[in-house]
Formats: sequence, C-alpha cells, structure tokens
Amino acid sequence: MRNRAIFATRLTSFLFIFVVSLAWAASKPNFVIILADDLGYGDLACFGNPVIHTPQLDRMAAEGVKLTEFYVGACVCTPSRAALLTGRLPLRSGMAGSDKLRVLYHDSLKGLPPEEITIAKALKGAGYVTACIGKWHLGVHSPYLPMDHGFDAFFGLPYSNDMNRAPSGRKVNTASPEARIEHFNVPLLRGTNVVEVPARQDTLTRRYTEEAVKFIRERRGQPFFLYMPHTFPHVPLFASGQFRGKSRRGLYGDVVEELDWSVGRVIETLKEEGIANDTFVLFTSDNGPWLTRNLAGGSAGLLRDGKGSTWEGGMRVPAVAWWPGRIQPGTVNRQMCSSMDLFPTLLALADVKVPQDRVYDGYDIRRMLFSGAQSPRDSFFYYRGAELYAVRKGDFKVHFTTRPGYGPEPAEAHAPPLLFNLAQDPSERFNIADKHPEVVTDLVQLARRHKAEMKPGEPQY
Amino acid sequence: MRNRAIFATRLTSFLFIFVVSLAWAASKPNFVIILADDLGYGDLACFGNPVIHTPQLDRMAAEGVKLTEFYVGACVCTPSRAALLTGRLPLRSGMAGSDKLRVLYHDSLKGLPPEEITIAKALKGAGYVTACIGKWHLGVHSPYLPMDHGFDAFFGLPYSNDMNRAPSGRKVNTASPEARIEHFNVPLLRGTNVVEVPARQDTLTRRYTEEAVKFIRERRGQPFFLYMPHTFPHVPLFASGQFRGKSRRGLYGDVVEELDWSVGRVIETLKEEGIANDTFVLFTSDNGPWLTRNLAGGSAGLLRDGKGSTWEGGMRVPAVAWWPGRIQPGTVNRQMCSSMDLFPTLLALADVKVPQDRVYDGYDIRRMLFSGAQSPRDSFFYYRGAELYAVRKGDFKVHFTTRPGYGPEPAEAHAPPLLFNLAQDPSERFNIADKHPEVVTDLVQLARRHKAEMKPGEPQY
Repeated sequence: MRNRAIFATRLTSFLFIFVVSLAWAASKPNFVIILADDLGYGDLACFGNPVIHTPQLDRMAAEGVKLTEFYVGACVCTPSRAALLTGRLPLRSGMAGSDKLRVLYHDSLKGLPPEEITIAKALKGAGYVTACIGKWHLGVHSPYLPMDHGFDAFFGLPYSNDMNRAPSGRKVNTASPEARIEHFNVPLLRGTNVVEVPARQDTLTRRYTEEAVKFIRERRGQPFFLYMPHTFPHVPLFASGQFRGKSRRGLYGDVVEELDWSVGRVIETLKEEGIANDTFVLFTSDNGPWLTRNLAGGSAGLLRDGKGSTWEGGMRVPAVAWWPGRIQPGTVNRQMCSSMDLFPTLLALADVKVPQDRVYDGYDIRRMLFSGAQSPRDSFFYYRGAELYAVRKGDFKVHFTTRPGYGPEPAEAHAPPLLFNLAQDPSERFNIADKHPEVVTDLVQLARRHKAEMKPGEPQY
Repeated sequence: MRNRAIFATRLTSFLFIFVVSLAWAASKPNFVIILADDLGYGDLACFGNPVIHTPQLDRMAAEGVKLTEFYVGACVCTPSRAALLTGRLPLRSGMAGSDKLRVLYHDSLKGLPPEEITIAKALKGAGYVTACIGKWHLGVHSPYLPMDHGFDAFFGLPYSNDMNRAPSGRKVNTASPEARIEHFNVPLLRGTNVVEVPARQDTLTRRYTEEAVKFIRERRGQPFFLYMPHTFPHVPLFASGQFRGKSRRGLYGDVVEELDWSVGRVIETLKEEGIANDTFVLFTSDNGPWLTRNLAGGSAGLLRDGKGSTWEGGMRVPAVAWWPGRIQPGTVNRQMCSSMDLFPTLLALADVKVPQDRVYDGYDIRRMLFSGAQSPRDSFFYYRGAELYAVRKGDFKVHFTTRPGYGPEPAEAHAPPLLFNLAQDPSERFNIADKHPEVVTDLVQLARRHKAEMKPGEPQY
C-alpha cells in the first residue's frame, strides 16, 4: 500500500514535470534576426531618410521599438557577424584581424573557430530548428560553414558579393552601374553544396525571402531561430525586376526598398501563421554605410563617418525590434545596447544557460526591451581590427585613435584622447577633453582594465 | 397671385442661400500653423534624431503626414515669415534685403508693408477669428504689427529673443549658458501693449501654449486661424522648470522637448473641444539650424549646411501636417512643397479667393495633402537676401552661388553652376553638372525667366 502511494506520488510528480516541460517547450519563443549589409543609420524613413521608401520597416517600428543607440561589435562585415552570433568581441574569437582592418575573402582558409558557440548552436541544443539564409562571411570551408556552427539549414553566399572576381570583372568598379552579375564568381550554396555560379545576385533578396517564408511555414511545431543576413546593400548593387528603377534614390534605394519588402513578407508570414505573439524579430545592419562608394553607399544621417571607422557612423546602426504583446508599440528606446547583447538575451528567452567557460561581452537586455527598464549596458568598446580605438561609458566617448573609414588618410593617435558627449553632441563635433579631464581619466582607466583583462583569440586571417 | 408666387419663390431662394451660407460658414475649417525658430531637419525623433524626445510630434506624424521636402521661402527668420504669411517670395514684398542677408532688428523702422495681404487678413474677411501667439519679427511699430496685418490678437515678442541687448548683455555669447534673461531687453506684447520687459523667456513657451489653448477654447463658434511662431529654439535658449535639465541633448534638447509638449497640448485641446476633424494643423520651422551656434544650434540631419545658406539644410525643414479624417494617418509625402503654398491652400479650404492683383509663389496643395496626388509644385527658387543662389526643378538643383550659412567664408560664384540630384544625392555631395549639361541649361533658362519676370518690392531694411 505504502509502495503504491509512493509510486502514485512519483507518477504524479513525473507527469506534472512532463506536462510543465511540454508547456515550457511549447512556450519557447521564435527568433528572427534580419541583418542588412552596410546599411547606414540614415537610410530608413523611420530613421530620417527623406527619399527611400521603407513602409514595412516604418510599420515594424510603429508596432515595435526603434533602438537609437544600437551598436555592432565591429565596423566591418566579418568581425561584426562573429560578434553578433557569439556575443563576444571579435578579438576574443580571433576574428578581429591584427593591425589592419580584416574580413574573410573567398580564398581564406580559416573562419569562426569551431569552439566558438553561436546563438544557433546554443539554441539547437534546446530544441530549436535553425536556419541561416543570406550571406555567411565567417568561413568558406568546413569546419567554418553555417552547418558547422549550429545551423540546420543554409541558403546563401559564403562571402561578400564583391569577392572572387571573374577575369572580366577584375577592373570593374563595384560601385558603378557597370558591375554585372557575371563579373563576380560568387557561389550560391544550399547546405554545403554549390547550387549556382555565379549567384544570380539580382534575385537574391527575393529568393532569400521565399526561403525564409518557407522555413517559417515548415517549422513543424518546433521553436525556430532564423538568421537572415542579407547580401545587400553591400556593393555591387542588384535588385529584382520588381524593384529595379523604382526608387528616386537610384539603385541603392531600389535595393533598400526590396529589403524593406522582404522584412514585410517575413512579418506578414508570422502573422499569417498565427505566431506573431510568439516571435521576437530584430532588424539591423552589420556596420555603417560604405561612404567611399559614393551613391552606391548609404548615409549615416547625422552620425559622423561610416563603415571602417570607429566614429559613431561606423558602428551605430539602425535597429528595430518587434514582438507583439511583449514590446510596447511605437516606442523609441534611446539606451545603449549591442548586437552582442542578442546572445545572452535570446538564450535567456529560450531558457538556455550562457556557457560559463568563456568571457562574454553581451548583456541580457530583456527588461530594457520589454519593460523599458534601464539597460544593463553602460559601456562600449570600439575596435578597428585588433586595436581599441575608442571607449564609451554613459554618454561620454573617448577616442584614442581615429581614422576615416576606408579613406587614404592614416590613423591619427590622440594624446590626450579626444572626448565627446554623444548625448549632447551626437555628431561628434566638439572635443571637450579640456573641460572634463576627470572623465578622460576615468575612461582611460576603463580602457586599461579592459585591455588587461582581454585575452585575444588566435588570429584567423 | 403671380406676385405672391414670385415672392414665395424669391423667399425660398433667399432662405435656401441663407441656410447654405450658414452651413458653409459652419463648415469652414480651422487652421493652426506652429512654427519653430531655427529648428533643423534632423532635430525631431520622427526625422531621425537619436537623442531628443518628441513623442507628441511623433504621434502627430503617426496620425498625420510627414512632409520630407517642405521648403521655406528664405534661409533666415524675417523673410521666411513674410513668405509664409503672404504666399510670396520675400523679394516681392521688400523683405528679402538687398545684397546682404537681412532680418529686422529691434530698432528697425519698417516691416512687412501694409499693402501685403497675410493669411490672417485674407481669412479675417471671411469670418475667421485670428491670433498670432509667438515671435512676430515682421515689424516693431505700427503699421507693421500683427494687429495691422489681420490678427485680432497678439501675444508674444516683436522680434528675436537675442536682440535689444541690455548693457550687461552686450558681450554675452548668446549661445553660451551664461546668457541670462536680464541680458536681453526683449519686450513681451499683448496686442500693441508692452506687458513685460525683459520678457521672462524661460516661461515663454509655456505661456504661449496656455494662450493658444485659451484662444481655441474661446473661439465662440467662429472658424479660427491660429498662427503660433515660437520664440525657440533660437538662441538664447531658455526652458521652463518642468523641462530644464531634462533632455540628454542639453538645453537645446530641453527647449525642443518643451516645444513638443506645446504641440501636444494644442492637439489635445482640439480633441477635447471636439474639433479635431475640423482643424488643419501644420508644424514646421522657419529655416534650418543655426550651425555656428554649436551645441546651442540644431542639426540638419543628412542635409547639407544650415540657417543662412541655400544648401538644403538651410531651407528644407521638418514638417508634419495633421487633419483627422482628411489626411491619411502615418504616411510620408516626399513631394516638393513650401510654406508659401499655405496661403493659396488655406484660402481655398476657407473658400476665399486669392487676390488677382499681385504675383503669388505658392500652389494650392490640397490634393497633394489629402489624396496623395501629384504636387502642383515642380520648382523652387532659393534666395539668399535678394540674390537667387539656386534653383530646383524636379529632382535637380543648380547652385549659381554658394556660401556657408553665417560662416566667415565669402560667397563663391559657380560658372558653370553646380548641379545636384536631390533624390539620388540628398546630401548634395556630388556635382554632376558635367554629366547633364542639358539639365543645367534648362535650369539656367528657368532662372533667367524667373528673374526677368520678378518685380522686387521696395526694400524695407
């Protein structure tokens, strides 16, 4: 009798835990991260662009939150993607380069080290189905491909669309309208298989979108993580027939407007599938606009400089977060946060523990996003390659070194460092180091502590 | 019998016309024009500012339309106001100055000529009650004051808040935090009477707002025209206790955030009074940001230069139009329009004929505003003082002369002129005159015809 009672109790406990676990698994939210490539702070209508039409992103902002102080982990593609997916500064994973600003090329032999844990890998272990649809740029060969890094599926380019030139394209200016699809031997991959060479770049955005819609529809009741790093508006620019020649801003505008359409399709699909209330969507860019590409590059709005620089225009990017029922619609959040915060935030939402065996640079920003609470992030470290160029704490930012993004001008070291108040002077016009020596000292010490604690990973370039 | 029939018919006709007239009078819409002073294209959150909080203007845009290509008639205060109120280029009314960039000062003896017809004067004749609450800046003495120009009521400053220095304020930098109320002998007027010297500038925005709310509430069934040209964010900057020290952007942000509050109070009042559906509200600025005032000046966002210049940042200003039931909510209209278009548009809405005895530079933009139809405006003439510096037609703009706003640099004449495509290159970075000589020729001819037809008014400075 007593045994039966114990058995009944145990069974009840077991069933209870089983049911709770099922409910818990069912309640795990879906995640969609959409990353534009080289899109600037001033390129969306909801971020002040006067010409480019972005009605879908404007609506996403009206239904969600606009993040005005969202930073990426690096001012160029490869390290920025590494930072987003791992929640760590690229220097830690060996993806920062050394003295020079580095990205992976089509002939690179290394990539994001296999021991790095991506959001995809962490979520996969918790029952998520994962897909990377778009430009990877974290390695060309195994074990550096998306499928090696926790993604169940991959459809897209292994690297940037201006790489691996065909002989006919060697001398073509990628920012000019003369650039043709045939000039770039960029392969399109499905999984690990090459399915198209050269990739038909003009229909890439449309095909990524169709693939994403299909992935969402076929999720089969599992929670999912969709990482959608678009190929554009990185040069060379291509848009599909539906968008080419439609924007007053020219080809750059066509391309951004097609991306906007794509975002709309993804959100529409979530609504159609009835899972909008269970899905967190974030749209952002991997770094600032490529200003030296002239009209084939974007605009950083009122922020200074662009891609390749550690001025705000290089590393502060437009960002919109969306989750009906969780995020207060039509709000603006002006607190500091970063693409590196996605790792701990998404893991927390999925009830996955952040690994304890390594250093992370991200913060769990759930309360900031969902309750407007104070951001746990109070500082940001701006690297150019492996060098710490600038540090922000609160509203103050010191520059130890500055250099225009991709220009011919050399780096300029500043001793004493430059100091700007990013709240009062978002365009970084007025050096106020003279007026606040104590702030400079504080930030110099913060940088020193950061450097002392930093253990760089083996460089992968 | 026949006489009685005729009498009955006539009586019926009379009654019909009487009733229709009554109904018509009752259906005349109200107009509110809110004009900020020196607010830049990049200073509102809905126009991309990352720091300044403008929830009321953001909501106004969400309920109305954001106009991204709205131009003022001059790049400085006095002529810009003349253009808005008369629908004419300031050169026609003698308000453009001559060779130099001119505004009226506290010791000016002239002003907007009495023979000019303001929106207020035109509407007053059609049964409107009219008020000017804010900074006039079109003349210090009669017959140049608001009451001389069709306003039933005036409460505000006759000129800019940095004029008429007290001896103690002669050497004060108006853009510095050292500027105090006592440094400026600016009078506050009610009607034509001085009621306060120096004007307590810190509470001006609040008091203008209270006055506007009172005016709206006490309208007594008449349609009204409320013209609300704010004193700020023109330097010296002052905000009331409720806003001082509250914005992360510093005093400039405090001042803009108080203006935002003010706009919210006006719109709230219209809703409370149940007349939101009968009222057209437009918010805009008189010219671009005063960049040489550093952090006490605003930002033109991605537009080039600011106040005092004929680059886009000097004359393209943020604008939001609102009319529930008439304007499609949450839209962006990217067509060319101007403060000078308000004269014919408001008159048409009030069923008032535009006088035929003079030349107007405005267009009736009702269909553009309410149906998204094509704007009737296809060109814009950019004057600096009395000189035509630039001309826009479609998306192309030629600069015959350029000069940074208020800088020490002299004017630079361009032969051949510079050519920019404002749609593809909104920041005016790339001169494309070489590539489109036919467009340059076309615009040069347009400028020539314009100059040939222009009959400048007697200069009033």
